Amino acid sequence: MAQGDAPLQVRTLGSFHLGGAFMHVSGTQQVQMTPVAGALPINLDAAGVFPYGQMYVQFTRLHRPRSPHPLFLWHGGGLTGACWESTPDGRPGWQTRFLRRGLDVFNCDAVERGRAGWSRFPQIYPGEPVFMPQHAAWALYRIGEAGAYVEQPQLRRVHAGSRFPAAAFDAFTRQIVPRWTCNDSLIQAAYDALLAREGPCLLVAHSQGAGFALRAASAAPDRVKALVLVEPGGNPLDDAQMRALAAVPVLIVWGDFIASVPFWAQAFRQAQELAQALERLGGDVCVLDLPARGITGNSHLPMMDTNSDAVADMVCDWFIRKGLLEQERGDA
Amino acid sequence: MAQGDAPLQVRTLGSFHLGGAFMHVSGTQQVQMTPVAGALPINLDAAGVFPYGQMYVQFTRLHRPRSPHPLFLWHGGGLTGACWESTPDGRPGWQTRFLRRGLDVFNCDAVERGRAGWSRFPQIYPGEPVFMPQHAAWALYRIGEAGAYVEQPQLRRVHAGSRFPAAAFDAFTRQIVPRWTCNDSLIQAAYDALLAREGPCLLVAHSQGAGFALRAASAAPDRVKALVLVEPGGNPLDDAQMRALAAVPVLIVWGDFIASVPFWAQAFRQAQELAQALERLGGDVCVLDLPARGITGNSHLPMMDTNSDAVADMVCDWFIRKGLLEQERGDA
Repeated sequence: MAQGDAPLQVRTLGSFHLGGAFMHVSGTQQVQMTPVAGALPINLDAAGVFPYGQMYVQFTRLHRPRSPHPLFLWHGGGLTGACWESTPDGRPGWQTRFLRRGLDVFNCDAVERGRAGWSRFPQIYPGEPVFMPQHAAWALYRIGEAGAYVEQPQLRRVHAGSRFPAAAFDAFTRQIVPRWTCNDSLIQAAYDALLAREGPCLLVAHSQGAGFALRAASAAPDRVKALVLVEPGGNPLDDAQMRALAAVPVLIVWGDFIASVPFWAQAFRQAQELAQALERLGGDVCVLDLPARGITGNSHLPMMDTNSDAVADMVCDWFIRKGLLEQERGDA
Repeated sequence: MAQGDAPLQVRTLGSFHLGGAFMHVSGTQQVQMTPVAGALPINLDAAGVFPYGQMYVQFTRLHRPRSPHPLFLWHGGGLTGACWESTPDGRPGWQTRFLRRGLDVFNCDAVERGRAGWSRFPQIYPGEPVFMPQHAAWALYRIGEAGAYVEQPQLRRVHAGSRFPAAAFDAFTRQIVPRWTCNDSLIQAAYDALLAREGPCLLVAHSQGAGFALRAASAAPDRVKALVLVEPGGNPLDDAQMRALAAVPVLIVWGDFIASVPFWAQAFRQAQELAQALERLGGDVCVLDLPARGITGNSHLPMMDTNSDAVADMVCDWFIRKGLLEQERGDA
């Protein structure tokens, strides 16, 4: 088991932005702004050069990692790297668990999310932001059935046996961020640039992030030593991309209540087909269908569910079986 | 001096969102979204309940901190907590320096910035976002003179003797995020809630963040054991608030080239008046005017300048003089 309450030995921590380009935006508008009451106003020219398409990467490197490769965490749609840091009810998240298991962690915010920043629209992004109301999050993250009743906390009913810390649902929704539907190629390009610069890596990607991870791994299979798809939102790969991906060991993790949302029932089928196709191609693929193994009640957010550490440990044990992570001293 | 390359002994790291409230937004618009190519489309209802006004706090707690109080880092306008993590040219930032000096660090993203997320406008925020072009950042952050020439990297000329890592200016601008001018009360309320929940603290606030810090400290002087205003963007306090603030030790840090920007010349005067007023009230205030002490060349971003560690150490030495931080074993 992990080393409990012993201090983490951290070599370095920090962050960087990477990817994207710079664009000149025209316009004559002046925005006047007073950043602190009583200060002089600042006139900000709306015209000029702006960066766009950059992502944000926060790294925590251990003094003595037990893998030669860092672990990259790629969040799902509507979320940021905050989803891996702590659970909504305040327990240590997967970032801590993976660090304690000996992995350097690179926790990422995709282009347009979180600390990556975002760009003006429609001048740079050709579309409008999309916001997720609480009732949609409740259903899509498979915490409970869809319905307007979710807006009244006292009426919320979780799926029977749910492991999501539902008393912290309001707290969870504070970390949901807007997103656009028009920026997939920018997001992909930045993720690809991250692999080129900081790979090879172990890659854990959640939900929408799994789509970017599948493309990135198939484009640079030598830069991804293992790919963990946590509740993947689909499979965007064509046959040639699938053949390239077959060189990468793949683990697919699923929670419970899949049938409650047609979107997830379809994504589950697509992932089953992905696994079968990789096997036909001679790939190394493992499906960790938690309910099929007797572990029921997980939502779409296993990194936040009450058994989050146990699920992270299953991922680490798979890394160990693949020879990518050393067993801890003192382990059984 | 700090312990160089010895590993940091980290007890816990994680994050949380706090503050704000929930609002029902009406509307009949449905947004259709396909998060991964080939997946079923998701219909997102634009109506529902949304959180707003929350901030983001990322904490790194040491195994053996040398202060009973955590250090809170509050960024300036246009930035996020990323500004403290690493310098744009890839050196460890003030977050690392303060951790190595023995302080637990709470690195914050204000409401509407970075991982705090932001809310739709004009339905929740009654205004438009403001974006900062590169040429405005160059001048306002006092890297060099204002002008459209900044848009051509080969033409950029820094202020004579500048310590800003100007070759990384493009990299720096990737971390600039949009902001609104209509949300000061939301930002303030979340910061006040943070002090109430996690204080007492040592508080380091930069630029626009210093305005929020002054208000927060004057409203809860028992929750702020020391206040460091790094290049404060003004002083929003009235006389009664100033009297409350006089109970808090205050350090004000200034870089160079103040006269190059009227906004900063005015802010500098306001801070001098603040210091004099606190002294008249019997307060404990120290102005660390770096050029006046022979340390020339600092920009508005001393946490990124080439002498960033030295400036952070001056802040730590002031904490030590105030009895708020233990000297390291092995220090002179």
